[in-house]
Amino acid sequence: MSAFADRLAEAVRRDGPLCVGLDPRFEMLPAYCRKFPPGVAIEMFCLKVLELVRPFCGVVKPQAAFFELFGPEGFSAMQSVLWRARELGFVTILDAKRGDIASTATAYAGAAFGEDVWNADALTVNPYLGQDAIEPFIRAAREAAPPRGLFVLVRTSNPGGGLFQNALSDGVPFFRRVAEAVVDWNDGGTGERGFGDVGAVVGATHPKELGELRAAMPGVWFLVPGYGAQGGTAEDVRTAFRPDGLGAVVSSSRGVVFPFRPDDADWEAQIVEAARKARAELRSASGG
Amino acid sequence: MSAFADRLAEAVRRDGPLCVGLDPRFEMLPAYCRKFPPGVAIEMFCLKVLELVRPFCGVVKPQAAFFELFGPEGFSAMQSVLWRARELGFVTILDAKRGDIASTATAYAGAAFGEDVWNADALTVNPYLGQDAIEPFIRAAREAAPPRGLFVLVRTSNPGGGLFQNALSDGVPFFRRVAEAVVDWNDGGTGERGFGDVGAVVGATHPKELGELRAAMPGVWFLVPGYGAQGGTAEDVRTAFRPDGLGAVVSSSRGVVFPFRPDDADWEAQIVEAARKARAELRSASGG
Repeated sequence: MSAFADRLAEAVRRDGPLCVGLDPRFEMLPAYCRKFPPGVAIEMFCLKVLELVRPFCGVVKPQAAFFELFGPEGFSAMQSVLWRARELGFVTILDAKRGDIASTATAYAGAAFGEDVWNADALTVNPYLGQDAIEPFIRAAREAAPPRGLFVLVRTSNPGGGLFQNALSDGVPFFRRVAEAVVDWNDGGTGERGFGDVGAVVGATHPKELGELRAAMPGVWFLVPGYGAQGGTAEDVRTAFRPDGLGAVVSSSRGVVFPFRPDDADWEAQIVEAARKARAELRSASGG
Repeated sequence: MSAFADRLAEAVRRDGPLCVGLDPRFEMLPAYCRKFPPGVAIEMFCLKVLELVRPFCGVVKPQAAFFELFGPEGFSAMQSVLWRARELGFVTILDAKRGDIASTATAYAGAAFGEDVWNADALTVNPYLGQDAIEPFIRAAREAAPPRGLFVLVRTSNPGGGLFQNALSDGVPFFRRVAEAVVDWNDGGTGERGFGDVGAVVGATHPKELGELRAAMPGVWFLVPGYGAQGGTAEDVRTAFRPDGLGAVVSSSRGVVFPFRPDDADWEAQIVEAARKARAELRSASGG
C-alpha cells in the first residue's frame, strides 16, 4: 500500500496544494443549519462543504476543537465528516495537536488512525513531551493500513508563538531544534518520491522561516496554516514548495469555508468561488 | 465564588494530596465489565472507581486519550464520569493536554469548562504554541462560574521528556523558561491562600527539579504525575510540597485503579486498599 507521503503527493499533483480547514463555528453557519441542534448543524454544514470544495482540493483538515465544543455529539459529527471525506477521496488531516507520554500517546494514535474511530490519514502532534511521546505516534502511523502520517508543530502561525519557539538555544531558535528532530523522525518512513511520513507545521505568517526550513528539510512535507484569514498571502507561501511544486499543503479555513454571512442565500456559490480562487492562487504559488 | 486554587486547597486539606488518575484500559477491566461495549464498560468501571476512592482522595484526573480511543461513545463516558465526579464533590482535572492558537484555544476551553460539555474544574495544557495560545484558556478559566484552573506542562515524567525540555536556553534548561512564564500567567488569579489558578505539571520522576521548581514557584500549584507505576516514590515527591503541606496534588493512575487482574473477584477491595495506601503515603510525604 502506498506510503502516506506518496498519497499526499498524488493528491497535490492532481488537485493542487490547497487544504481546506473545517472549523465549524455554529454562529457562522447558514441560517437553515442553525435551526438544528449544534452537533447536527455542524455535521450537515461540513458534509455539504466537502462536496462543494471537492473539485478544488484534495486535502481537508477538520479542527477537533470546534467539534469538541459540542461534546459527544460534536465528535459524532467529526467522525461522519472524516469518514465521508475519505469516501470522497480526500486525504484527511485531523488537526488535534495531540501529545502525551508513551502509553497515552498510543491511545491517542489509536483513536486518530483506528478504522472504527476517526480513521484519519494524518494527525497534527505537539513535540513538547519529547522523544518517547512522538515515537508511539510514528509506530502507529507506520503500522496502520494504509500507512498514515503526522505533522509535528514546528513554527506556528500565531503572533505569540515566538515566546518559546524563538527562544535561543545554543544560538539557534528553539523551533530549529524541533525541525532537526522532525528530520530524524523520518528515518525509515520515506516514500517513493523522497518525502517522509513525519511532516512539519510551519505558519504562512513567517515567510522567511518557511524558506529556511524548506531548505533545511527537503524531504519533509509541510502543513502551512495561516493563509487567508490569518494574513498569510500566496506570495508568503511560495518558499514552502520545492522546485517540483511539491512539499507543502496550505490550509485555509475561514477564508474558504466562511466567505458568506449567515443569511446569504448564495452561500454555497460563495464557498465554491472562494475555493476556486484559493486553488488558483496556490497552484500558481507552488509552480506545480 | 471560591477561586480554583482555594477549592483545590480545601480538597487537599480535607482529603490529602492524592489525585486518582482515570485511564480506563478496556483489556484491564474486570471481566464482568468487558461483556459490555467498550464505551459502556469504561463508564461503568470509572463510575464504580469514583465511589470506591471517594473516602481517600478529593481530586480525580480523567485522561482524555483513553476515552477518545472509543470515539463518540468514549467521550459520552468521559462526560458521565466528569459530571458524576463533580456531584460526588471531587475537584476534577481533565488531562487532555490541549493547546492551539487563539480562537481554537477558546473552543477547547469552552469544551473543557462548559457546563453542557465537560464542565471540568481544571484542564492540562501544552505551552509550545506560546503566549496568545495560553491566554484564551486563562480568560475562560477566570470567567467561568465557579472559576476554573489550568495546569501547564513544564517538566513531564516520561524518560524522553528531556529532548526539548532540558535543551539549554541561555544557560538554563528550557523548562525553566516555561516555569517563568507560568509564574507570570498567575498575575490576577491569586486566591486567598496565595496560590494562583495556573498550575504546573512536574513529573515525580525528577525529584531534584521538583524541589527547585517548588522554591522558584511558591504560589503555583503542581500536578505531579509519575508516582506509582511510573516509578516515582512518596520520598521523590516530598519536595513538591510547601512547609504547610499544600502546593501539590500527586496523581496515581494504574497503581490505584488497576492493582487487580481482570479475573480477580475482589477487585473492588484491591482498589480500596491501593487508594488507602497511596493516601497514607502521600499524606505523610506532604507533612500536611
